[in-house]
Amino acid sequence: RIDGDRLWRTLMDLAKIGATPKGGLCRLALTDLDRQGRDLFVSWCEAAGCTVTVDEVGNIFARRPGRNPDRPAVCMGSHLDTQPTGGRFDGIYGVLAGLEVIRSLNDQGIETDAPIDLIVWTNEEGARFSPPMLGSGAAMGVFTLDHVLDIRDSDGLRLGDELARIGYKGTVPVTGHVMGAYFEAHIEQGPVLEAEGFEIGVVTGAQGQRWYEATVTGRESHAGPTPMRLRRDALAGAAVMMEAVEAIALEVGGDACSTIGRVQVHPDSRNVIPGRVWFTTDLRNPDSDALARMDAMLRERLAAIAEKRGLTLELTDFWAFPTTPFAPELVDRVRESAQRRGLTHRDIVSGAGHDAVYVARKVPTTMIFIPCEGGLSHNEAENIRPDHAASGCAVLADAVLATAG
Amino acid sequence: RIDGDRLWRTLMDLAKIGATPKGGLCRLALTDLDRQGRDLFVSWCEAAGCTVTVDEVGNIFARRPGRNPDRPAVCMGSHLDTQPTGGRFDGIYGVLAGLEVIRSLNDQGIETDAPIDLIVWTNEEGARFSPPMLGSGAAMGVFTLDHVLDIRDSDGLRLGDELARIGYKGTVPVTGHVMGAYFEAHIEQGPVLEAEGFEIGVVTGAQGQRWYEATVTGRESHAGPTPMRLRRDALAGAAVMMEAVEAIALEVGGDACSTIGRVQVHPDSRNVIPGRVWFTTDLRNPDSDALARMDAMLRERLAAIAEKRGLTLELTDFWAFPTTPFAPELVDRVRESAQRRGLTHRDIVSGAGHDAVYVARKVPTTMIFIPCEGGLSHNEAENIRPDHAASGCAVLADAVLATAG
Ligand SMILES: NC(=O)NCCC(=O)O
Ligand SMILES: NC(=O)NCCC(=O)O
Repeated sequence: RIDGDRLWRTLMDLAKIGATPKGGLCRLALTDLDRQGRDLFVSWCEAAGCTVTVDEVGNIFARRPGRNPDRPAVCMGSHLDTQPTGGRFDGIYGVLAGLEVIRSLNDQGIETDAPIDLIVWTNEEGARFSPPMLGSGAAMGVFTLDHVLDIRDSDGLRLGDELARIGYKGTVPVTGHVMGAYFEAHIEQGPVLEAEGFEIGVVTGAQGQRWYEATVTGRESHAGPTPMRLRRDALAGAAVMMEAVEAIALEVGGDACSTIGRVQVHPDSRNVIPGRVWFTTDLRNPDSDALARMDAMLRERLAAIAEKRGLTLELTDFWAFPTTPFAPELVDRVRESAQRRGLTHRDIVSGAGHDAVYVARKVPTTMIFIPCEGGLSHNEAENIRPDHAASGCAVLADAVLATAG
Repeated sequence: RIDGDRLWRTLMDLAKIGATPKGGLCRLALTDLDRQGRDLFVSWCEAAGCTVTVDEVGNIFARRPGRNPDRPAVCMGSHLDTQPTGGRFDGIYGVLAGLEVIRSLNDQGIETDAPIDLIVWTNEEGARFSPPMLGSGAAMGVFTLDHVLDIRDSDGLRLGDELARIGYKGTVPVTGHVMGAYFEAHIEQGPVLEAEGFEIGVVTGAQGQRWYEATVTGRESHAGPTPMRLRRDALAGAAVMMEAVEAIALEVGGDACSTIGRVQVHPDSRNVIPGRVWFTTDLRNPDSDALARMDAMLRERLAAIAEKRGLTLELTDFWAFPTTPFAPELVDRVRESAQRRGLTHRDIVSGAGHDAVYVARKVPTTMIFIPCEGGLSHNEAENIRPDHAASGCAVLADAVLATAG
């Protein structure tokens, strides 16, 4: 019913844009490479007979019309942007699995009752412009348009300017797109499906996240003649805090995760005791109470370390979303599709945030996971099996057809 | 005999170039601001009747002739470059104290037997181009000229190109300058003289230093769906290493110091478990055996942490110099000058590296310290008392005169 070879070829074609020597992708949001990727995708959609529109934050909508233009569209989608050292499938798989569904419907001359929309959301990764999921967040009214357009990357470039520069500042009002349902296929990005031998993950929801920024301030002084006892070394203190952040997830256990992804040291000179250190923190837990406990541990422990060392700590909330359940009727539909196709499957909670998390606030939503090699993602070596890619696409096709009628 | 007010005014005049809002200086080596500082200094030297020459690494020599042109010059000097968040006196005080000595000799019509040279060494701080003390190191044959000219800053700019750009690539052969003796006045940069109430530090030598670069490699993966137990988090490991580096100096005790001044995290994205962390380490001890012990502890402990966490550690020696004694006859001369002037003084070992450390390898050398406020240096709030500045300058004048005859 779907063409797994064509899907794979299409994935490999898109993986040429922004390819890294290590076999991954670096196609950061709203760069020239992102534009090239978007352009190629749009050309494929037009060739498949879709009408393409773009909204005010650059989200792309490719519509395959239905018999009944008054029915809200059944939507599929994901994102095309990557991490700086990202893989070929994170996000991209969901978009191109959707394209393969449309191509297969065309091949088989199948008309649906509701229109089908294939969506590319802007800046899902949160790598160049942070936080993540900005396109879907803006579309769902989580962020105002002005707020999103004003976000800057670390070179100070404005999201809105970069969007215009690459030619993807569209005119469709950002919250104006009507969606009847949303399905997002994605690689698991974790080790569970592969380790347990399942072909399909039936995603029942996504775990909650809390992101922070910490600034630790001490006193700059000379690395030589300043005795250890007189130092207020912001980095030595930050190192102990980083260990504490790791310990929080280890102590809470279960699925708890804690990560520090970015660090900046000031003045960043070899023989100057650092006066200021900035770092990010990402706490996650599928259990809301446990996540709240992690939040309290973070605040308490970092403050205690700062206090003990005569350092100042500024800990700010940067971004968060609560544990998000997906629409039970769509989750069931995915499970049934997998079952009917004879694919092994298990229910799973997403460890990552996805555009589906924001879409779920307004629209019945769910996701379909396929295994990835070693559970590895946000890594250039990220990999999947072509047969898994085809299986996930088939389940997506069934679920979308069952919904669109 | 010397004019303390003029010295202070001159210090304040030079402190206008590269002044920061917090009252310090940012005048990194071979920047436009460094050029402006050098130009002002050269104009002052020429106004004082000196002949100015520049060598192949941009070291500046201002000569006040003596009766006997065949005698090797008695030299004074230090540096004009600063840390990114540096103070107004580190290096600059030694240069301008030397200028005040020359101006005072002129005022009083004193002729010396040997010529007197006032030297500005290029890139002492090691902040923009690392390691430190490159100008004096090249002049003393510690580094080859080509090696020094090829060193790059973190933007990839070549020292040699920047030298030519600011117009300070001179023609005097870098190892060709003949020096009979070298005196460097400097702020202590540590708390000892102030805390113990001494006006002059008679510097008997400088403690040894060992600098390193560490690269910790783990595996990049997704901050959400990657369980804690499957992570090889380069930053979590590096944080424990940073704590171990601090612990080394605390355990060895005495004057031992350990500092991490720079850290870089890759790929530096909030939701990516860092795959690689690079950091610098600076170990110091006046006791050579203790420094060797610290070196062994560093290698052993960092390797053990890497091993335990499944990380790879590459620890490379970046720069080092052994504990360096200064010339006893010059040290005595400084002590006697302080005594004769009725200034309180104590012997002291320099906690910092100085151009004097490299010059001492070939030329009888010593230093004169004055107290600085709270022992604070490599900090914009670095400060000294005008009367201390004048006292140090007077001792420098006496020691130079006694040597030049
Ligand atoms: N899938 C993905 O990497 N999303 C970005 C948000 C997150 O870090 O969970
Ligand atoms: N004085 C000074 O800051 N020198 C640089 C070399 C060192 O860090 O000791």
